[in-house]
Amino acid sequence: MTERENGKPLSDLRPHIVIIGGGFGGLYCAKELARHKDVHITVVDRKNHHTFQPLLYQVASAVLSPGEIASPIRSVLRSKKNVNVFLGEALGFDLAARQVKLREFALSYDFLVVAAGATHSYFGHDEWAGFAPGLKTIEDALEIRRRVLLAYEIAERRAAAGETQYPLNFVVIGAGPTGVELAGALADIAREALVHDFRSIDPARSRVLLLEGGPRVLAAYPDDLSTKAQRQLEKLGVEVHTGAIVSNIEAGKVHVGEQVIEASVVLWAAGVRASSLGAALGVSTDRAGRVEVERDLSIPGHPEVFVIGDLAAFKGPGGKLLPGVAPVAIQQGKAAAANIWRRIQGQPTCGFIYRDKGSLATIGRSAAVAEIGKAHFSGTLAWLLWLLVHILYLIGFRNRALVVMNWAWAYFTRGRGIRLITGSTELPGVTPPR
Amino acid sequence: MTERENGKPLSDLRPHIVIIGGGFGGLYCAKELARHKDVHITVVDRKNHHTFQPLLYQVASAVLSPGEIASPIRSVLRSKKNVNVFLGEALGFDLAARQVKLREFALSYDFLVVAAGATHSYFGHDEWAGFAPGLKTIEDALEIRRRVLLAYEIAERRAAAGETQYPLNFVVIGAGPTGVELAGALADIAREALVHDFRSIDPARSRVLLLEGGPRVLAAYPDDLSTKAQRQLEKLGVEVHTGAIVSNIEAGKVHVGEQVIEASVVLWAAGVRASSLGAALGVSTDRAGRVEVERDLSIPGHPEVFVIGDLAAFKGPGGKLLPGVAPVAIQQGKAAAANIWRRIQGQPTCGFIYRDKGSLATIGRSAAVAEIGKAHFSGTLAWLLWLLVHILYLIGFRNRALVVMNWAWAYFTRGRGIRLITGSTELPGVTPPR
Repeated sequence: MTERENGKPLSDLRPHIVIIGGGFGGLYCAKELARHKDVHITVVDRKNHHTFQPLLYQVASAVLSPGEIASPIRSVLRSKKNVNVFLGEALGFDLAARQVKLREFALSYDFLVVAAGATHSYFGHDEWAGFAPGLKTIEDALEIRRRVLLAYEIAERRAAAGETQYPLNFVVIGAGPTGVELAGALADIAREALVHDFRSIDPARSRVLLLEGGPRVLAAYPDDLSTKAQRQLEKLGVEVHTGAIVSNIEAGKVHVGEQVIEASVVLWAAGVRASSLGAALGVSTDRAGRVEVERDLSIPGHPEVFVIGDLAAFKGPGGKLLPGVAPVAIQQGKAAAANIWRRIQGQPTCGFIYRDKGSLATIGRSAAVAEIGKAHFSGTLAWLLWLLVHILYLIGFRNRALVVMNWAWAYFTRGRGIRLITGSTELPGVTPPR
Repeated sequence: MTERENGKPLSDLRPHIVIIGGGFGGLYCAKELARHKDVHITVVDRKNHHTFQPLLYQVASAVLSPGEIASPIRSVLRSKKNVNVFLGEALGFDLAARQVKLREFALSYDFLVVAAGATHSYFGHDEWAGFAPGLKTIEDALEIRRRVLLAYEIAERRAAAGETQYPLNFVVIGAGPTGVELAGALADIAREALVHDFRSIDPARSRVLLLEGGPRVLAAYPDDLSTKAQRQLEKLGVEVHTGAIVSNIEAGKVHVGEQVIEASVVLWAAGVRASSLGAALGVSTDRAGRVEVERDLSIPGHPEVFVIGDLAAFKGPGGKLLPGVAPVAIQQGKAAAANIWRRIQGQPTCGFIYRDKGSLATIGRSAAVAEIGKAHFSGTLAWLLWLLVHILYLIGFRNRALVVMNWAWAYFTRGRGIRLITGSTELPGVTPPR
């Protein structure tokens, strides 16, 4: 190391803020801090791109291309000259020395923001992962797309070979927003997109099962919206099973108590677990691995370290944990940035207050539910609102235009544009026919 | 097997034509044959999608998404009710029994069209494949994109860590059309697309080397166009080395005789080899594995078996082999279809005559060469012609619109839209810094 140390010229005496994670929290935090020319910021992420997670299920369901919902973090922050971006993985922290341990070198900070997010949790059954992929990254979405499209291809080939049709069952486990979106999209693919494309099978006869362990779908929403969501799902052709606790998953099979469901494709949307970087901070975490942060989003004993987004356990009004959604992460990112700037200026920090603008969950074509303040909507109106909000929040003008174009095409033709199977053409648990 | 056999109901007495490969040759052959309702056609491909290979280098260079240059074969042929599509791999043939051996079952045919194309050849050095990927499939293009973008990320991280900048050399081996396109695109990325995105390295200082074993670039073109192409490449910043025969490739290094070139990324565009399905037909093949077909594109001794496209060795006027390009494959696909229909009707077949509409090779922004009859063009005019032709031939209206939009964006912003690194974030031969 000569004239530079840890990504910063030695002569740079500006406070250095390191942000781990380029998701919604990290990105908005970096943008907010970058306005102050007297600080220097480094964003570290394991991926080179920010993923617009709310639309990830549309990549999984062949409506959008990965490039339309992901932007290189480097190019989103291109105009911010006091921001550095590193593709790299944070392995741990030395809070006393104020260093982040990256795989390649140690990065010194004056302030640290950990926004490393969450991944799916198989509740101690990590062996299920190979049979039931979850949906958190672009790679996950492409794997789900591959499996879903491949299931139809294999069924067609088997039926054409004279074999009795093997069951085309799609099973989605977990009826939170992601599970509901996936189930709705799978029903749409079966009933609309593929209906004229096969000769030996009838895609419309495939089944989509949504299994939920709890008593209702979209449990975070009010009762009436759960009921409406379930009705809309059933109208799309999804079989909704509540109180269905999965006891085992193996190749091609899902066990619910004594019952065994044959499944061509199984998708996991049942649980999330915070990044292990939360525990690596050495402070107390909740059962899901989330860090119990102070009111100003810093961690106990380290006013220079902030945790935001899905990795933070923050109690909102009524003592209820804030949900792991983009608006919370965005607002916390901005709040952490403001608090860091206050500390640099020697001012006291402020407590974070979440401004809940409402919740939206989409189900399928013209089907969604929305809760805005005391008002509840469902159906086409909620769906249009969902479209509008997601277009507005999509990062980058160009992505927005491409997404609108793909949506219009998918809506009017009832087709799916990005029906590519890349990678292997084998499915777990699918053996060649006799 | 009950009421169906080999993909066809037993009661179907129409002639069954099996086409192996959904590239340009196979697809145009299927479309042409499908006009006759008295035949029944099955298209078999290992992938579910037709790949528009002439634009594959634009996926590799982050301009286009895979979904924009690939369409599901099934949906391209959706309206042809007498066409079946199978995702499957042909392993061999039983010409006496008139059967194709698929991995899953045997498929009987009355007529067979083998259009299985070509792959890259490392001239007996298959161990180079891991260090120098070629460009034939969507997966190849994504791997090249990953390596190129990752090389910049790693250089930035190393420079920021204080390490002396490691050489950012991109080496393309082979200066045929694909090698020239890739080299031009790499120069464009370095000089234009990434120039404002890094803080510790200067992408414009990276080198792009194009190594050609022969005496000139684009050897299939007339001398004057080769010279112009080389000049345009050099203007874009590509270092062109002709007479440079690669003797070895290892991780991060290319050997040219005694000289060793350090390389962050090595791409292979030097040779092609026909699919091994050519040799599996048991007829004579040339050195590149191409089948020496009769004038009517059938194979000697088997008038019911046709070989077309990159897999066929067909001598045009002057005894020169027709090149492995899309127009040849398209015309041969249509000609094979016409000959099959003639045979079904008891008529004699016709010899194939290639109508050469000219050759076009693109180099980079406003740089291309074109040979149309006796006229030679280069520069912006040739480039505009190239754009027009490729938009017209792109399969599917929707892809066309998305491609035009992405091209316009890339042209006016000088940016690259699809800069995603998916999959591993390691490069072969790149070790962590000291």
